[in-house]
Amino acid sequence: MRSIEWIKEKNVVRAIDQSRLPGEFTIIEFKQADEIRTAIKTMTIRGAPIIGVSAFYAMALKARELEGESFAWMKERLLQFASHLGFARPTAVNLGWAVEATTKLINAFTGSSGELSEVLLALANQKADEDVATNLAISHYGAELINDGDHIIHHCNTGALASVDYGTALGCIRLAHEQGKRIHIYVDETRPRLQGSRLTAWELEQYKIPYEIITDSSAGYLMRLGRVEKVFFGADRVASNGDVVNKIGTYMLALAAYDNGIPAYAAFPLSTLDFASPNGEAVPIEERSGDEILNLQQNGLPVAPANARALNYAFDVTPHRLIDALVTEKGVLYPPFFRSISVLNNNGRTI
Amino acid sequence: MRSIEWIKEKNVVRAIDQSRLPGEFTIIEFKQADEIRTAIKTMTIRGAPIIGVSAFYAMALKARELEGESFAWMKERLLQFASHLGFARPTAVNLGWAVEATTKLINAFTGSSGELSEVLLALANQKADEDVATNLAISHYGAELINDGDHIIHHCNTGALASVDYGTALGCIRLAHEQGKRIHIYVDETRPRLQGSRLTAWELEQYKIPYEIITDSSAGYLMRLGRVEKVFFGADRVASNGDVVNKIGTYMLALAAYDNGIPAYAAFPLSTLDFASPNGEAVPIEERSGDEILNLQQNGLPVAPANARALNYAFDVTPHRLIDALVTEKGVLYPPFFRSISVLNNNGRTI
Repeated sequence: MRSIEWIKEKNVVRAIDQSRLPGEFTIIEFKQADEIRTAIKTMTIRGAPIIGVSAFYAMALKARELEGESFAWMKERLLQFASHLGFARPTAVNLGWAVEATTKLINAFTGSSGELSEVLLALANQKADEDVATNLAISHYGAELINDGDHIIHHCNTGALASVDYGTALGCIRLAHEQGKRIHIYVDETRPRLQGSRLTAWELEQYKIPYEIITDSSAGYLMRLGRVEKVFFGADRVASNGDVVNKIGTYMLALAAYDNGIPAYAAFPLSTLDFASPNGEAVPIEERSGDEILNLQQNGLPVAPANARALNYAFDVTPHRLIDALVTEKGVLYPPFFRSISVLNNNGRTI
Repeated sequence: MRSIEWIKEKNVVRAIDQSRLPGEFTIIEFKQADEIRTAIKTMTIRGAPIIGVSAFYAMALKARELEGESFAWMKERLLQFASHLGFARPTAVNLGWAVEATTKLINAFTGSSGELSEVLLALANQKADEDVATNLAISHYGAELINDGDHIIHHCNTGALASVDYGTALGCIRLAHEQGKRIHIYVDETRPRLQGSRLTAWELEQYKIPYEIITDSSAGYLMRLGRVEKVFFGADRVASNGDVVNKIGTYMLALAAYDNGIPAYAAFPLSTLDFASPNGEAVPIEERSGDEILNLQQNGLPVAPANARALNYAFDVTPHRLIDALVTEKGVLYPPFFRSISVLNNNGRTI
């Protein structure tokens, strides 16, 4: 099944509840647009690609809710919701990009409420299909970078769960495995939300790819021991100079790879490129509640004093100098990235 | 109170149970030497300096257990226990150093069982006193490196809990605060055992030093944001070239400090120097059970698939090139460390 899809027979959007894995595999059915917005905000749905597609589905559901209304009223309410939806999470470019694309479409649309509703649903389904095709293309290019016998460190979750299907960095790994390459993955647990130990480990179990979970802070030591050949991660937003904004910890991981002469690859769809951001510092970095760090139990005991405060940035900026290549659906980009990216920009791209 | 001490009236060694903090402040009383060995192994007692002193107390307790025996038999059993004790944890030099010192003493001792028992207890008490004095001296030198207004990242726990009292890196921080410098600490939570969020945060609450807990992987991003002036950590063993073996994550932390031009300081007693290790690679690195990574609950849910395997190195090696200074009880050592350390070695040192 896809991680998110429209179920025609039931008129619902169906998705995997990422907050319950790996303990429980739970399917959620969304009937209301606002339920999807909340799911994005609380990270029941998480991962840059799936957030983008979910936003298209949220707009489609919102349109269905408003189908009985006048077109003008529907349009006003839709644009209102779109702007609200855009604030659910600030860092991944995919959400803003989905909101921008649907807003443009709605503003230009001439037709009935029912027709707009149908168009928005068709658009969401199309974006879902495109996501799968894009991820497969990324995975093909990325798998070529992986050799038989490689030990690969992977950060966060960038797999089928983080997308409609297949994923980006984890897609490359999965395809290399399907090509018969014997690989072994060190799974960064990825504090504080533990997307690595919870979700990536769960996916690797499904694909039967050998792995071991490590603490994020062990990655560098394993590199020093000579036990790592490659580092793979995704991206939530990539600036036009090639700086990669991704899950917190990516910078320290890429820096350790650089210090040990190990190649670090960021895999993402071209839609992740933000030509409006000249560098990573221009990208808004989400700060989430410190409770995500503190609400943990070890052997049933609290892990911090009762009044402790925690500072929780969800993403960081990895300067382009630490990245060996950017893996996209159009091929692998090499440094200098400002040039390889600007070629793409000048050639234009479709949203 | 001291974190470990001999209670004459009760004939017990009393220590703080570090495995229950910060939820519960529990005092343990050890009557048997083997209870101390187990406490070191399970990390109920942890921290290089306190492990060393605890080993002296374990030897003293063992001698008391054997007081009624013949001297020859006592000696044999004591040496047997010493060698057993030495294997409780491999990385911190303090344990091996305590075992070596008591073994030497026992081998050279001429006298009765009762006298040897008294001597070993006196030695343990002396080592405890020395630890406090040494830590205060380290803290004085280290506090001079800290300025009013500094934001400091601290890794693991190196405070009163990790020693008999005061501690090393956290001692420097505490003394700077007592000198009236307004400082703020970013507490690395320190996966997997969370000594930062559990123990260092608890100590900082006692000292009323402002702090925020962060995930280990956020340290680099905070540095990039210009929010960090200094990095402080301890050491479990320091090679003769200045390589620092310390809690897992220290390498990536020091590397990020280096990449951002932020000074990184290791604070430790000279007894942590291991002249027999030419570099960090020569030091045995403890691998602990993967369960320490996996046995965690987030919102009451498991954090990894049921069959997941984890790889858990407890320490790593930070190459000397990433460290700005070594803070000891005899003063601050600057690069090139092989030279400043060899001067110490040639001057001789007492154990």
